[in-house]
Parts: sequence; C-alpha cells; structure tokens
Amino acid sequence: MLEQAVGLGAVTVLGVLEQAYFSLQVIYARRKYSVSPPATVGPPEFERVFRAQANCSEYFPIFITVLWTSGVFFSQGLSAVCGLLYLYGRFQYFRGYSESAQGRLAPLYFSAQVLWVLIGFSSLGVLLTFCRVYLNVDLLLELGSALDLV
Amino acid sequence: MLEQAVGLGAVTVLGVLEQAYFSLQVIYARRKYSVSPPATVGPPEFERVFRAQANCSEYFPIFITVLWTSGVFFSQGLSAVCGLLYLYGRFQYFRGYSESAQGRLAPLYFSAQVLWVLIGFSSLGVLLTFCRVYLNVDLLLELGSALDLV
Amino acid sequence: MLEQAVGLGAVTVLGVLEQAYFSLQVIYARRKYSVSPPATVGPPEFERVFRAQANCSEYFPIFITVLWTSGVFFSQGLSAVCGLLYLYGRFQYFRGYSESAQGRLAPLYFSAQVLWVLIGFSSLGVLLTFCRVYLNVDLLLELGSALDLV
Repeated sequence: MLEQAVGLGAVTVLGVLEQAYFSLQVIYARRKYSVSPPATVGPPEFERVFRAQANCSEYFPIFITVLWTSGVFFSQGLSAVCGLLYLYGRFQYFRGYSESAQGRLAPLYFSAQVLWVLIGFSSLGVLLTFCRVYLNVDLLLELGSALDLV
Repeated sequence: MLEQAVGLGAVTVLGVLEQAYFSLQVIYARRKYSVSPPATVGPPEFERVFRAQANCSEYFPIFITVLWTSGVFFSQGLSAVCGLLYLYGRFQYFRGYSESAQGRLAPLYFSAQVLWVLIGFSSLGVLLTFCRVYLNVDLLLELGSALDLV
Repeated sequence: MLEQAVGLGAVTVLGVLEQAYFSLQVIYARRKYSVSPPATVGPPEFERVFRAQANCSEYFPIFITVLWTSGVFFSQGLSAVCGLLYLYGRFQYFRGYSESAQGRLAPLYFSAQVLWVLIGFSSLGVLLTFCRVYLNVDLLLELGSALDLV
C-alpha cells in the first residue's frame, strides 16, 4: 500500500519544509522591522511578508487534503506532479508578495489554477470510485466502449 | 480499502469546494469595500466576511481530521452524515455572519455541536480499536454479553 | 492496518481536544476583556491569548501532517511519543503566552524542535520507502552490512 503513497509522502514533506521556510521569513521580518509579537501590524514591508505566510498557511491544509484525495482516488503520479507545481507557485507567490502587493498576483493565479486541477482530479476520482463500488459500473470502461461504437 | 473511504472522500471534496466558495466571497468583499491586500481591517461589513472565512479556514483542518479519524476508526456512514451536517452549518454560519455578528451564533453553536459528535465518535473508535488490538478485548461484544446477562 | 495507526489516532484525538481547549480560552478572553467579534484587537492580555490560539491553529495541520507521514512511513511508536511531547509543549506555550510575550519563548522553541524531529523522521521514512519501492534497495540493511564489514 505504501508504494501507492510514497510520491505523495515526498511532496508532503517538501510542502512542510516550504511552510517552515515561510515561517522563518516572518521571524526575520519581525526582527528587521521591529514588530514584536503579539502585534501583527507594522510597516507595509512587514505586513506583506506576514500576510503572504498567513495566506500560504491557510491554504496548506486544503492543499494537503486535495493532494491525498486526488492521489488516493485518482492518480498518485498526476497528483504528485501537480503538488510540485503548486509548491513552486507558492514559492513564487511568497517572493513576489514580499516585494510588492502587485507581485503576488501572477503566481497566486497560477497556484489557484493548479489547486483547481487537484480539486477536479479529486472529484473525478471519488466519482469513479463511487460508481465502481456502489453501482458496480466502471465509468472509464463504459466511456471506452461507447467511443469504440462510434 | 477504498470502499471504506469513498464516502469520506466525497464529503472532503464538498468541504474543499465550500472553502473555495468562502475564499471567493472574501475577494468580492475586498473589491466591494475597497480593502486591498495586505490590509485586513475596513468597514464592519468587510471584517465580518473576512472573519467568517478565517474562522471556517481555521476549523477546516480540525474538521477533516476528525471526519477521517471517526470514519476510519468508528463508522464511515455516521461520519459522512455528520460531515454533511457540519458543512451545512458552516454555510449557514457564513451567510449569517455576513449579515450581522449576531447572525453567526445559532449556526456556530450547531456546527460546534456536530464537531463534538465527530470528536466523540473519534475517541470511541480509537478506544475500541485500542482495546481490540492491544488488550484483545472487544468492548462492544463485552457490553452486549453484559446486557444479555442482566 | 488499523493496528499500525491506533497510536497515531489517539494522539490525533488528544491534539483536537487541545485545540478545542484553546478555542474556549479565546471565547473566555473575549468576554473578560469585552472584545466582541469580528474585532481581533484589544488589550495586550486579550491579544496574547488570541495570537497564542492563532499560532497553535496555524501549526495544527502541519503537526497532524508530519505526525501521520512519520508514523506511516517511519515508526508509529516514535511518532506517537513525539506527538505527545509536541502537545505538551504547545500547552506550556499557550499558558506562557497568556501570561507574557516572553513566557511563550521557551516552550515555543521546545515544540519547534519536536516538530523538526517529526519532519526528520518523515523525510527519512519517505526516503527509505522510496529506495525500497523504486530502487529495490533496503538502505537500513545496506548500512548494517557496511558496518559489519568495518
């Protein structure tokens, strides 16, 4: 069973390391701009780094959830590839947002699109599994036969 | 093994879609009330939508965690039903909070109660599995015998 | 398969209960210092409790993710022990932060260190599984033979 999950495990570990990197950047920004906890407001430079990290943290559980749902019910390989693209997009987003509010937009749209692909894979995987388990119908096979008849 | 999880997978996908819907509402509210990132303060109408989404995001990982713990160790069917009720409660909470701070309370209590039920199922499931695996005791069977004797 | 996970399930349930406890403390602090939602700013006493809970919530998904990755790919026993230490550290962090911003530091460093150990276990577990599955090499066995030869 672990064979079917080791790729997802690898992307998961990478994702956690990326979040750790973002958290360290917030700590550096707190020192640099002298914003001591519990304050979360300060110069825009600090607030951008803080919000970038907060946004990535907020999406992290959703990312991990769809990565595994898509990987388990649809395809480990495709999910792992999308996972790597998402983590790359988030890295660009964090760097862009740290420089300017405008700089966050392009990588934000990119990572949102990758997330939608993973949500699509998850939905499809759950639907196909549902039909196979409860209705005893293999939708992919049916589709193949239908295309053969055409 | 996937048969035992497809119901949980379906609720998970629904939950992710609900979070996506909430995130879009924050984007619309940012435009409507002209609150550009990284700012998170503004008119109360904006702050209510922002906090509603933040609160739902904060509870999302806890929800997914207990949904699956309860589903794997206790009962897939009962967990999936509770999961649907929770997502319904969160939808009502988001709508209520968007209108007034008061409007968030009733659905918040409802979804908190459903979450407690899922936590109870998780605890019970882990306890029953623990007794079966490590103490070789089937608590439900023992309970049944005890009731028979009475 | 559940035998290999019941320890992780137990730590997971404990972690959820701890988060529930933190959330209740924020509700009490809101009442005590009269900070009604959606406001999140107020006297420092309130803000410390609020930020303590927000920080624990932010790390909760990362904790659950590495707990299970480490437990599934490396060792359930070691992961469960680290998980308990982490939850203990977070409890001390919350109490310390509630009293003073300084009081949060020692337990924060402690729980961060435990988290790094779990990240290390996860990485090692994924690497060992990857080598076994895709390269057909058992790294631990190879290491043992190499040490035998010395």
